[in-house]
Amino acid sequence: MTTTSPLDWHAAFSGRAQLMKASTIRELLKLTQQPDIISFAGGLPAPELFPLDAVKQASATVIEKYGAASVQYGTTEGHLPLREWIAAQTPGITPAHVQITTGSQQGLDLLGKVLITPGDVMAVEEPTYMGALQAFQPYEPRYVGLPMDEEGIIVDALRDILQTERVKVLYTIPNFQNPTGRTMSLARRQALVELTAQHGVIVLEDDPYGKLRFSGELLPSLYELGLQYHGGDADANHVVYSSSFSKTLVPGLRDAWVQGARPIINKLVQAKQGADLHTPIFNQMIVTELLADVLPRQIEIVKAAYGARAQDMMARMREHFPAGAEYTTPDGGMFLWVTLPDGVNTTDLLPLAVERKVAYVPGTPFYANGGGENTLRLSYSNARTEQIERGIAALGATIRDALQ
Amino acid sequence: MTTTSPLDWHAAFSGRAQLMKASTIRELLKLTQQPDIISFAGGLPAPELFPLDAVKQASATVIEKYGAASVQYGTTEGHLPLREWIAAQTPGITPAHVQITTGSQQGLDLLGKVLITPGDVMAVEEPTYMGALQAFQPYEPRYVGLPMDEEGIIVDALRDILQTERVKVLYTIPNFQNPTGRTMSLARRQALVELTAQHGVIVLEDDPYGKLRFSGELLPSLYELGLQYHGGDADANHVVYSSSFSKTLVPGLRDAWVQGARPIINKLVQAKQGADLHTPIFNQMIVTELLADVLPRQIEIVKAAYGARAQDMMARMREHFPAGAEYTTPDGGMFLWVTLPDGVNTTDLLPLAVERKVAYVPGTPFYANGGGENTLRLSYSNARTEQIERGIAALGATIRDALQ
Repeated sequence: MTTTSPLDWHAAFSGRAQLMKASTIRELLKLTQQPDIISFAGGLPAPELFPLDAVKQASATVIEKYGAASVQYGTTEGHLPLREWIAAQTPGITPAHVQITTGSQQGLDLLGKVLITPGDVMAVEEPTYMGALQAFQPYEPRYVGLPMDEEGIIVDALRDILQTERVKVLYTIPNFQNPTGRTMSLARRQALVELTAQHGVIVLEDDPYGKLRFSGELLPSLYELGLQYHGGDADANHVVYSSSFSKTLVPGLRDAWVQGARPIINKLVQAKQGADLHTPIFNQMIVTELLADVLPRQIEIVKAAYGARAQDMMARMREHFPAGAEYTTPDGGMFLWVTLPDGVNTTDLLPLAVERKVAYVPGTPFYANGGGENTLRLSYSNARTEQIERGIAALGATIRDALQ
Repeated sequence: MTTTSPLDWHAAFSGRAQLMKASTIRELLKLTQQPDIISFAGGLPAPELFPLDAVKQASATVIEKYGAASVQYGTTEGHLPLREWIAAQTPGITPAHVQITTGSQQGLDLLGKVLITPGDVMAVEEPTYMGALQAFQPYEPRYVGLPMDEEGIIVDALRDILQTERVKVLYTIPNFQNPTGRTMSLARRQALVELTAQHGVIVLEDDPYGKLRFSGELLPSLYELGLQYHGGDADANHVVYSSSFSKTLVPGLRDAWVQGARPIINKLVQAKQGADLHTPIFNQMIVTELLADVLPRQIEIVKAAYGARAQDMMARMREHFPAGAEYTTPDGGMFLWVTLPDGVNTTDLLPLAVERKVAYVPGTPFYANGGGENTLRLSYSNARTEQIERGIAALGATIRDALQ
């Protein structure tokens, strides 16, 4: 045996790998997975609502129906009946406008890969989904933060930014945003679509939660408004839309999609060929089996449960949170956002909360360029009444201590 | 409705996206999927050998056994029992040395992402797997081709290259290589591992077919030789190994893995978090159910079938191919490689072959820096006796015409 000095792996990593960090959310999830901790940290769908029997039945059906094709290599674009169903949800688009992805996360990665050259300016909500930042980071965008209020992105602020910044891509979650739970108003949606079209900004609309509205009225997607703006021409639409079956059916099959103009979809197909050839065809077929009956039923079940849990959590917050702790009122989705008085640092507070057996995600990692030290995200989707009661009481006590 | 000039998508694409091209293999697959064409083009496993009942049973078992956890979000690293089984195949490694990926293709993409900075030199076999080139291309390596003979990479040629080139990563498929079907000899393996260690070259060993040896003796992997070289220290091993269940069980579940030193695995975990969060947990659990009984049985079934098909194809080639058409003799896997006399262009020949209702893949796209115009790849894995008989006769006739 010869001895040679071992490889310096760190030095071997690419420039983009040096920028990667473990996801704070996922590392936190591990820490808070002790059974005695009430965790509002993870963004987990409620597992007790999963349509397990239907998935089991669909798995068998798919093998009986398609035989070996259900587990053979498939096309990169994705299972055609699934793409047809997705296309049929929006008048004027076809399966050629749809690319199936292995979770929404892969859509973000591939979009970053094909759109972002290092230094390109990306406008993101402040705060935004940290998984999106993690997906885009290896492609080295320069982030510009977009201020928000209860109606979502402040479009006038974007207009000012566009005077001085050449924004290439704008990433937004208009419905029940992760992390804030906020929803962009119709007026803002219209103004945003128009302004971005005028400035040649590509809009990435991430909509994993859109179907989970438990109060208020359904609003048109930016994608639909973009389609209208461009006279119904799906290939001229500057809005690229992404959604998922993770929050409406189950996350563990990893079935999601991107829809957009054919030039971008064609490029995504090429990127996906290199990235993983295709999303498991078995899983796509299972999801397809569930579209007609199970999906609409699940959406009702999940909406009702999450709506009740959100109400429950807000009621407990009114009871236990001290004055000065503010929070959003979501109309759907899985999250709400707490803002504590300036000077309170929620990262420092977390160990104290964990001592009291409750966990959340500190807000800072959701900010592309820092900030939000006094904010935190709570997820109510995977919490039962009793957990909400004890957990919010414990968190209220933690916050009250911090404010003293 | 306002009218604005539509986005110039092509101009919007990133530099790396400009480098992406549709995979020639996959585009060809589409063209040759007409039912009357005998296609030796695709690298498809034989679907009639798939253990469909076992997959169906395992799908049900997994839901009964794990309940909602079978379709909930999972850890990025992958299902622990699957990683434990993989680790147990090689003494001295642990699950912390294993990352589950969505097909081997994702392993290649993530390895490219974390290792390759634009301009880094990658040494690849000439020819090599075109899907690997497609995975690495967006990260903009500069490729150096490694000449091969019947024993695989000519290590003396690599030694010469290392005098002038600072090779960062060497990518190789030592067993039944795609596309040539060649296997690297033991002496070459030992020399390659030692030489790359001395020069600080990271070796990516891609081994999707290793278990499918139908003649000759099993050889140690480069990974195992690397482990020996480094005194059993898995974290010092400069060889990173990748394999898959796509060729031994079924491809459509997309379950594969990378094993290597913990620094590289930890970085892959971060890259994978951004890329797709995790590989479908349902599929990982299904594969895990199949490891004990179904996998060893399948390996025997598949080996026997592919061995017979390879023999069959070579017998027909002896019968129908003219003098001057040379071909490799694979000891396993799915492919063999045909070299025609200089001056015959197999890309030009393909339409003539398709006229005779037979298809193959021209060799050129397997060369990172061009070349191999007179070569082609044949896959025998998904061909029955009658198809081999008619297809090779048709191909022989096509080649004879070309040589006249």
